[in-house]
Order: sequence, then C-alpha cells, then structure tokens
Amino acid sequence: MSAQGPIEYRDADANIRAVFDDIKRTRQVEDVNNFWKYLAHDPVTLKRTWESIKEVMAPGALDVLTKEMIYLAVSVTNGCGYCIASHGAAARKAGMSETMFGELMAVVGMANETNRLANGYRVPIDAAFER
Amino acid sequence: MSAQGPIEYRDADANIRAVFDDIKRTRQVEDVNNFWKYLAHDPVTLKRTWESIKEVMAPGALDVLTKEMIYLAVSVTNGCGYCIASHGAAARKAGMSETMFGELMAVVGMANETNRLANGYRVPIDAAFER
Amino acid sequence: MSAQGPIEYRDADANIRAVFDDIKRTRQVEDVNNFWKYLAHDPVTLKRTWESIKEVMAPGALDVLTKEMIYLAVSVTNGCGYCIASHGAAARKAGMSETMFGELMAVVGMANETNRLANGYRVPIDAAFER
Amino acid sequence: MSAQGPIEYRDADANIRAVFDDIKRTRQVEDVNNFWKYLAHDPVTLKRTWESIKEVMAPGALDVLTKEMIYLAVSVTNGCGYCIASHGAAARKAGMSETMFGELMAVVGMANETNRLANGYRVPIDAAFER
Amino acid sequence: MSAQGPIEYRDADANIRAVFDDIKRTRQVEDVNNFWKYLAHDPVTLKRTWESIKEVMAPGALDVLTKEMIYLAVSVTNGCGYCIASHGAAARKAGMSETMFGELMAVVGMANETNRLANGYRVPIDAAFER
Amino acid sequence: MSAQGPIEYRDADANIRAVFDDIKRTRQVEDVNNFWKYLAHDPVTLKRTWESIKEVMAPGALDVLTKEMIYLAVSVTNGCGYCIASHGAAARKAGMSETMFGELMAVVGMANETNRLANGYRVPIDAAFER
Repeated sequence: MSAQGPIEYRDADANIRAVFDDIKRTRQVEDVNNFWKYLAHDPVTLKRTWESIKEVMAPGALDVLTKEMIYLAVSVTNGCGYCIASHGAAARKAGMSETMFGELMAVVGMANETNRLANGYRVPIDAAFER
Repeated sequence: MSAQGPIEYRDADANIRAVFDDIKRTRQVEDVNNFWKYLAHDPVTLKRTWESIKEVMAPGALDVLTKEMIYLAVSVTNGCGYCIASHGAAARKAGMSETMFGELMAVVGMANETNRLANGYRVPIDAAFER
Repeated sequence: MSAQGPIEYRDADANIRAVFDDIKRTRQVEDVNNFWKYLAHDPVTLKRTWESIKEVMAPGALDVLTKEMIYLAVSVTNGCGYCIASHGAAARKAGMSETMFGELMAVVGMANETNRLANGYRVPIDAAFER
Repeated sequence: MSAQGPIEYRDADANIRAVFDDIKRTRQVEDVNNFWKYLAHDPVTLKRTWESIKEVMAPGALDVLTKEMIYLAVSVTNGCGYCIASHGAAARKAGMSETMFGELMAVVGMANETNRLANGYRVPIDAAFER
Repeated sequence: MSAQGPIEYRDADANIRAVFDDIKRTRQVEDVNNFWKYLAHDPVTLKRTWESIKEVMAPGALDVLTKEMIYLAVSVTNGCGYCIASHGAAARKAGMSETMFGELMAVVGMANETNRLANGYRVPIDAAFER
Repeated sequence: MSAQGPIEYRDADANIRAVFDDIKRTRQVEDVNNFWKYLAHDPVTLKRTWESIKEVMAPGALDVLTKEMIYLAVSVTNGCGYCIASHGAAARKAGMSETMFGELMAVVGMANETNRLANGYRVPIDAAFER
C-alpha cells in the first residue's frame, strides 16, 4: 500500500546493474544517487531516463555548468525539493560559486515575478518578437 | 470592466517617462516593450520592477547570456507566452544560437520530466547533498 | 475529434437550463459566461461546480471583493487566461479599482518571486511559525 | 499564530461527525485520513469537498482505478506530497500494480517534458485538432 | 531574432525524414503534427523525444487510452494549450467518449482543488500511507 | 557541496546588519525570520527583496490584511511550504481569523479547480470581458 524503497546494487538484477555501472563510470562516483535507486523499480524508465540525461547533459554548444544551472533554475521554479538538492550539488561540483548561485536565484526570482506581471496585465506579444 | 491597454510615451506623465527613458538608454532601443507600457498603469511597480531587472540582469559573476537563458528556462517552465517570446528574443540578441536554444530546451524538458519522477517516486534527499 | 463548442440556452435540456437560470438570477445577468456553456457538456460537473462556486463566493467572514481578488491572484499565478479575464472583470465589478489591481499584482508578483527564493535557498520553517 | 492540528472524532461536533461517518461508511475504513481531520476546521468546506469527491470518484464511464490514477498523475505534477502519498495508496488499493505505477510515472514524466517543449518552441495548434 | 517556423518533410534532411517516416508509419498518419515539425530544429531532441514517446505510449500494463488520458490530465493541469489540443484529439481517437472526458475533467479539477487544500492546511502524511 | 545555513546577526557584516535592523524596526520583532538569514548569503538580493517587500506590503489602496491573504493564496497555490507557514502566521497576526482562513482556502481551492476546467474545456474569452 506504500511507496517503495531504494533498490541497492547488491539486490539489483543484471539490467539494473548495467545502468548503475554506466552511471558510476560516467560520473566517476562510488555509488548512484537515491533517484536512480528508486527509479530502478521500473527498469525501462531507469534505462531511458539515464540515457536521455547522459545525452542531454553532455557538453555541447552549452557547457556542463550552464546546463546544470538551467536544470537548477527549473527545479527551483517547480519547487522539487530533491531536484534542488541534487542539482544544486551538481552545479556546485561543476563550478558554480555561491556568488553565481546568488545571481541565479535573483534571476529565477525575478522571472517568476515578471511572468505573473505579464500574465496578469495580459500583455500582448510585441510584433518585434515575432519577426 | 476590462483590462487596460498600453500607455504610450506621448500619454505618459513625468514619472513614467523617466523610467521609459532609462529603459531606452540602458537597452539602446527606440521604444520600450509592451510589458513596460502595461505595467505603467502602476507607476510604483513599473519603477521598482525596472530597477530590479536592471540590477539583476546586469553582468556579474554570470554573464548576460547565461542570465537570459536562465530567465527563458523559467518562462518556458511556467508557460508564460509573453515571457517566452520576449526573453527568447533577448537571449538570441545576447548571443544564443539556435543550437544553444535547442540544448536549453532539451535541459528544460528533462528537468521538468525528472522533477516529476523524483516527486512521484518520493525519493528522499541523499545524505551526500546535505553536507 | 475536436473540443466541443458552447451549449446555448435554447439548445440546453431542463437540467442545464435550471443551472443557467440560477446563475442568471443569482448574478443578475442576461446570459451566462462561456465557462458555464462549455461545462454544460457535463451536466453533473456543471451543477456541482456552480453550487460550489455559489457557496464559496457568497459574502461571509470575507466580503465578495476580497474573495474575487484572491481568486484573481490564484488565476494570475496559474497563468489561466480565461480565468484572469473573467475574474478580473468580476473583481472590477465588485469594486476593485485600477490602483487596487496594481497593488494586487505587485503582491502576486512578489509572492511568486519570494516563493522561489525560499525554495531555492532551502529555508527551514522558523519554530515561531509552528507554535 | 500557527496552523491548526487535526480534529478527532471524539472532539467533533454533530455536523463534522456526520461527514466523518459517511466517509467511513462509504470507504469502509475505521478512521478518516488526516486530510478530513484538518479540513474539519471549516465544516462547510469539509462537507462540500467530501460530497464532491464522493460524486466525482464514484465509478462511471471511468472505473475507480482509472480515476485514482488520473488523480495521482495530477498530484505528482503539482508536487503535492500529501496527495501523492494518499492517492498513491488509494490507487494501489484500487488495483494499481507497481508495473502500472511505473508506466503511469513514465507518462507523467514525458507529458511534463513535452508540455515544455511545446511551450518553448511555441508550436501552433494544428488545424486538424480544431475540427 | 524570432522563433522558428515548422520544418516540412520536403525541406528536411535524411535524419529528420527518418524520424518523420517512423512517426507516420507508427501512427498511420499522412503527415506529422506541428510539434514534430518544430522540434526538427534540434534533430537530436526530435529523435530522442520521439523514441521516448513511442516507448512510453505503447500499450503495456496500461492500455493506450488510459495513457492518453493521463497525458491529457497532466497537460490540463499545466495549462499547455497545444498539448491539451493534441492529446485531447489523441485520447478521443483512442476511444475517449465525451462522457469519459467529462469525468476526467471532474477528477482533474478536484485533484487541483484538494492538492491546495492539503498544502494550505499543512496536512501531515498519515502513518498508514507509509507502511 | 551543500546548501548554506543561516547567517546570524552576530556573524553579519554592516550591510546585512543594516537590512536586519530595518526589518526588526519595521516589523517590531526581536529577530528576523530564517528567510532573511538565508538570503543574507547574497546581500544585494537581501537588500533589494526587503525593500521591495517593504514597499509592496505597506498599506495602500489595499490594507495589510488583504495583502497578506493574497500572498498566502499564491503561496498555497505554488505549494511553497515555508511561505505558507510564514505568511499564514503574518496573515493571522494582521487579523485573519480561522473562519477567514477557511474561506480563503475554499476560494483558493475552487480557483485551482476552475482554472483547470477552463483550460481543459478550452473555453474562449467572452467578448464582454474584453470591453
């Protein structure tokens, strides 16, 4: 009747272990985060989500730090406690200083404020933004 | 009984004009966006919001482009049509290429997905994120 | 394959007409808003929603104007275009001046900003708020 | 100055007890959930909400399990911790297996991702969806 | 400086055409929806999103209709206009009657209401939901 | 790698102390809330946010109680636990009785329900709301 606990490596089957191993290798960590241990209850979603994350968060036109800060900004906006903690840690690991975090939070706060000002005042989109 | 239209420069009083002038000077634009023309119905909020935005969006530990992309990521997450249009334009003006926008959207999409996976699986915060 | 249009009074059956009649009588209006004409596709939800709204929005410890402004504040936060338009009109009809609307928007904007600052800085609840 | 605690059956007046009794009878449970004990501070909302829930969650064109899963999907999207716990339990009681929960979460995650992709890319609605 | 338009099949390169062809084959449609034509600006996200959607929305422990209704419930909650239109059409195509849609909407509405009642009354999670 | 703790008055520099002093003087409190102690990690945001809050929450066309209830309604809608606790306390301090809180919650709940009904039924805005 209740939510399920984490699946640890020692209790995981071969499919799950393969994903866990790839996460540990890619991120150079001893153990995977709780997120993956809980997702392991659905091995198909575990594999698909990890492969998507690995592809999306790899450096490209945007570097890893910028991507982690965007991730964090979304998580703060959604109020996802776990995601703020985990991607806050990831962004700091990727080089976000406390000053950068402070500026990020200032932008996130202002964006959430002005989004509502635009909604409430029913501001029409400027022609200049369309072409 | 209805929402109010924009206040144009020619119809604005001295307080509003002072803000409009500062926006035009700071951003090097001919005219201010609709957002400011609608906000002008409340000159106190107009002034406070502009001064906050000017301070928050100025280059600091984060450059203007990173700040605009964070702003855009929040606006996309909130589904604010006006804000997506205006800050999409601002981010492009600050140097966001279409490839960068594509990667930003991929991160925003994944963050919105995994935020819900973390919520729904009720994942507890790892001790490692706390210390 | 598409969404359904409004159900007008002349095309409505007796159950729907009974609700429409009560809305018109209670609100002293010639015709009901589109919201009710669309909801009429599900007469059970139409009746339940109208009876809830009538009960919830009636004057009590809070007057009608305060209730409409709270309704509007939520609708602005959720970015529901229809709801902002209809409850903006209702609040104005109940006595909300443009100055009051400006102050309401300023509060809604700040609340949406500080909600994210509290989330992002992971601020723990003060003991004083609990007892 | 603080939030109020639960109202237990032994401390409840006749109006509240009547609702609690109906919940216990309808759901065949020994005691009502915390949700109802907290809502009891406002007996009018308690009664209205229970009657709406009883009507809305009764089997109809959709069976109870489907309704509980839709409820859970919304609660996960909103990040309401209490609601995820209570309607997760209710959906499991109504027959949701862990495999079904996994697939539900996968759909909820993808919907939250693609909602943002549609917003951010500003995709116009296809004519085919309108007629 | 503006948002990009759709990429039509005739203008698409081989990678994009391969995805479009798979969508058309899988869904038995003449042309792909606007969503995919806009996503085609980022072929990596186009391919990853389509493959995820195809996997997640395939029949499993939940049938296609249930999955589409869950998708629609999330889209309504998020207020994503495009997604409500497209997944409303998809759910109707998969067999959702207007009566079923009405019941779905009633559940979605109640869930959004009670999510806030639980938040606002700060209801603690019942021990029974945890074990 | 972790989130930062509160900055207490004794450890704060002159800039932070000046804001803390102004909060204590304005609100007639012995100590500032955790919110300000956490925000103090970014003194620029601390100062800007406090000055905005002081201006926005001062009595005007709307009294302090109405403003606090609007703030609370937004915080409940966003599911911000800290904000619900702190602005619930502030609203009670400003005169909100438990009956008023109950009515506020009823309105917030209904607004969140009907916002989704309007979204999902794709209700067009009535001409009467526009002029």
